Amino acid sequence: MSSQSTKVSVSTYLFLRLKEVGANHVFGIPGDYVLPLFDELIDQDHGVEHILVCNELNGAYAADGYSKMSGFGAVAVTYGVGSLSTANAVGGSFADSTPMIVIAGTPTIEVLTTPTPRKLHHVIDTNFDACLEAFRPITAASHRLTRLETASAEIDDLIRTAMQRKKPVYLEIPYDLQLAEVEKPTEPLDLWLNQSSQVNLKAALCHTVGLLNSSQTRSVVTGHLLQREKLIEETKSLVECLNASVATTFVGKIPAFEGHPNAAGMYMGAMSCDATKTTVETADLALVAGMTLNEFDTGVFTSKLGEEQDCIWMDFDQVLINNHVYDKVYLRDFLPALLKEAKNDQAGTLEISKTARRFSFQRSDRFDPTDKNLTIDRLFVQFANYAKAGDVMFGDTGGYINASQAEYPVGVDIHGCGNYGSLGAGFALFCGGIFAKEASGRRCYMITGDGAFHMTAQELSTLIKYETDCVLFVLDNKGYGAERQIYPGKERSYNNTPVWNYEELGSAFGGVEGQTCNSFVVRTEKDMAELLDNLDKPKSVNIVRIILDPWDSASFNVKFSEALRH
Amino acid sequence: MSSQSTKVSVSTYLFLRLKEVGANHVFGIPGDYVLPLFDELIDQDHGVEHILVCNELNGAYAADGYSKMSGFGAVAVTYGVGSLSTANAVGGSFADSTPMIVIAGTPTIEVLTTPTPRKLHHVIDTNFDACLEAFRPITAASHRLTRLETASAEIDDLIRTAMQRKKPVYLEIPYDLQLAEVEKPTEPLDLWLNQSSQVNLKAALCHTVGLLNSSQTRSVVTGHLLQREKLIEETKSLVECLNASVATTFVGKIPAFEGHPNAAGMYMGAMSCDATKTTVETADLALVAGMTLNEFDTGVFTSKLGEEQDCIWMDFDQVLINNHVYDKVYLRDFLPALLKEAKNDQAGTLEISKTARRFSFQRSDRFDPTDKNLTIDRLFVQFANYAKAGDVMFGDTGGYINASQAEYPVGVDIHGCGNYGSLGAGFALFCGGIFAKEASGRRCYMITGDGAFHMTAQELSTLIKYETDCVLFVLDNKGYGAERQIYPGKERSYNNTPVWNYEELGSAFGGVEGQTCNSFVVRTEKDMAELLDNLDKPKSVNIVRIILDPWDSASFNVKFSEALRH
Repeated sequence: MSSQSTKVSVSTYLFLRLKEVGANHVFGIPGDYVLPLFDELIDQDHGVEHILVCNELNGAYAADGYSKMSGFGAVAVTYGVGSLSTANAVGGSFADSTPMIVIAGTPTIEVLTTPTPRKLHHVIDTNFDACLEAFRPITAASHRLTRLETASAEIDDLIRTAMQRKKPVYLEIPYDLQLAEVEKPTEPLDLWLNQSSQVNLKAALCHTVGLLNSSQTRSVVTGHLLQREKLIEETKSLVECLNASVATTFVGKIPAFEGHPNAAGMYMGAMSCDATKTTVETADLALVAGMTLNEFDTGVFTSKLGEEQDCIWMDFDQVLINNHVYDKVYLRDFLPALLKEAKNDQAGTLEISKTARRFSFQRSDRFDPTDKNLTIDRLFVQFANYAKAGDVMFGDTGGYINASQAEYPVGVDIHGCGNYGSLGAGFALFCGGIFAKEASGRRCYMITGDGAFHMTAQELSTLIKYETDCVLFVLDNKGYGAERQIYPGKERSYNNTPVWNYEELGSAFGGVEGQTCNSFVVRTEKDMAELLDNLDKPKSVNIVRIILDPWDSASFNVKFSEALRH
Repeated sequence: MSSQSTKVSVSTYLFLRLKEVGANHVFGIPGDYVLPLFDELIDQDHGVEHILVCNELNGAYAADGYSKMSGFGAVAVTYGVGSLSTANAVGGSFADSTPMIVIAGTPTIEVLTTPTPRKLHHVIDTNFDACLEAFRPITAASHRLTRLETASAEIDDLIRTAMQRKKPVYLEIPYDLQLAEVEKPTEPLDLWLNQSSQVNLKAALCHTVGLLNSSQTRSVVTGHLLQREKLIEETKSLVECLNASVATTFVGKIPAFEGHPNAAGMYMGAMSCDATKTTVETADLALVAGMTLNEFDTGVFTSKLGEEQDCIWMDFDQVLINNHVYDKVYLRDFLPALLKEAKNDQAGTLEISKTARRFSFQRSDRFDPTDKNLTIDRLFVQFANYAKAGDVMFGDTGGYINASQAEYPVGVDIHGCGNYGSLGAGFALFCGGIFAKEASGRRCYMITGDGAFHMTAQELSTLIKYETDCVLFVLDNKGYGAERQIYPGKERSYNNTPVWNYEELGSAFGGVEGQTCNSFVVRTEKDMAELLDNLDKPKSVNIVRIILDPWDSASFNVKFSEALRH
């Protein structure tokens, strides 16, 4: 195809659009129904690269993790067997508002539209619509291209839907459309975002300004939608204009606010440190920015936000002020408008005790390593002290429950499986996130429990194959530690996973020890301290097995597990 | 609970029923919404055991593989994250008519039925029905228990549906119902099978007898539904009464017929050996027993069954005789009825050339091992010669494509991913099948390509943890070999997987080399011959890495890949 040509294949058109929204990589596994699209992916000059993962579910998790870093993720798979494998990652990206696309190649249009008793491979008997239907309840759109004339517009619509709603979409492209030609995009993708109701926006703003004027102390609580909408800088300015305290949350763990002078700690309702809870819940006015009413951020719904204070809750597409709902007011419109108003604000009074504990694991906590075996509580104090600006961290469910309770400096990014809490997703999210340009040149760390890691462990071979530089901490407590705390002290065989020799995995997965991978086993505080002192050196996949007592648990986790008990 | 009590929990009731249909094990991963059910699973005396797998998708594959051996499979998971993870295995069990149940524990009935803006963990925002809806298009029934009064009857109905239709079902049990008490079953589960239309059955039988009388030569083609309906013995009698030739198929690979004196080989339309094709397609009358009109069994729809011969096609719930459809006549009713009639039949003439080739890899093929590197063609001749009565074999997609072309003796069981062809499912199917009592005391073999194996490889640690005795052959050709043949000779980066050191995996996954696992690397024919000579000794998980040229392919596979090219 000459560079003068104005025509590109439908596949290349899609890749060009994906690149515009931040997906410079497409994860995925080839299969016969999607091969033309994969050929275009590796052969054409669109600036999008293929990352081969070990299975489709992991690939979809990777796309989610990539999106958490870059703003959009993509995974390509073959029909049926590939599509359905991605379902749980799609559910997770829906629950945590991470936009991504699952692209599935299907049989030809003629095959799909001609009733037949023939059972093709990869098909649910003769129901070619089964996957489209299965994805409907767990996506913002589940769609199949069937006409070349409208293919480009439909692709644009689908990406737009994902971006507008910050949700996953599912797209089927028939075999014969994958190489069919359309006009190359001439204009950038018009994101054409859903518009806020101007009437409601103004009313909400007016109501807010009134509350600002009547409040002396203000607390801001930050949620994950600030990351999705890329509103972190604006929120920082807002905090400063209002001279508000600022607290992060479990899903919306944004170290930019934890290292801020106005930081009040991490808020999770009754599970917060006392000082944080008091600062957040007793300010005259609480501003909740981009946090949803989810179980984890609210500390299993123990939050008292707005109960004895005024409260402005900026959700994704509505603003709730005390008991009043301003519908169809998008966070992405409201927050910048509020910032403008806030610039005229009489700054409030900031009341934060800097000496009071604000995190379970605080950077000011002194850590002198002893010869004793590590405990989770002591380990995460070490992590809090070790983290430095530029680090990228991911945690899996259990690992993240603890990692999220540590304080991090400005410049760290940290992500987990969010409120969906899908065990095992974390490591595969990490394997995606590490490829985003936003992670480039930064040290990437993964913290996972052993049980979770087993679920998606083969992607370690992907990290090795692509010669990434990263650190994997496996918390080896021989099973599902978080779940053990649900019946403390009671032996439950179902929590006891196999015990792997994690230090042998790198080589088994094709790494060369000392070159593409380095493996370590630590048991004591001093082991760990020594390791951390030298961990910046090996530029490879570093695998650290941290041996813990099966019944050890962080104090925070005990409290959290108790609250989750039904 | 005293043994005199007539009450059991809903969970235990379910386990008692599962045991009746052949599920003596439940695979699965615990999670907070399903813990009471897991407690019942490990604490109560119902004869059903828990097998802990590494992730939910693998657990559902395992249930499918178990069902292929025993007749029914079960997997238990937590809501949302667990449920959706199983989707592709459920699709596979639907496509290949393997009955199984996915059991998901959910939040309490009150939570599920009270509208709320609260986003609970593991939930797709606030839509508690998302999973029920997503499973509808890929199951025979997707159902949630909500009333204790009818819970037992609903469980019975669901298992019955799965057994009647030989399809998967999805069942949600709210947290508060999992321990609620119901009456212990007093009567065996009434399977209450869908009844054939007696009128149509008689008419079909009458039509069939007419064709029997007018035919001199008969061929029987066997399909996988004979396994599902446990009709293999009846079919054997039918073959003998009719003095028919008998051919197996790809999905319905039943060695009982391959070692039969009347064996005509393996039939796959134009992909069959010439002698087999001729025997099957030129008999006066072809009887197709329990084979569906699927892509793989028909040799990518190249089958000429019935084109120049009379043909009786016994599908799951209908009989097609030439161009006439006898609707609502179940295979399970028709085949035994036909057998009765056949006992009065004037036996036909059997015309099979025993010297002609009937399998790509034949037991009569002489194999004298050389020093040369192994090729796939030579390897499978070795396998055909090695297999012995009692062996249980599973193959993954690519491994199975070749393994299915070998001839096996009576007494072998062999299963693959069927027409659904889900790469990676095979090994996890195997990890389920090995636990079925039907596999007990038998040597279990897995044949998989490397790319497929990577997808579900962590279950090797499950095999080691449970100290199973089995053999895993990994065909190491450094990528997706079957897919390479789609563009022969053309380098496609997406087909190149990481290259693992499979001989190190056992130990990395927690095995003790020489005790719970034994690892081998073979490259030449002699290596392999020597290994096979000694392979009966180590009672452990035996891992055999077979190093092959990346571009090597079996002659059959080349033909097959060519036909699948779109």
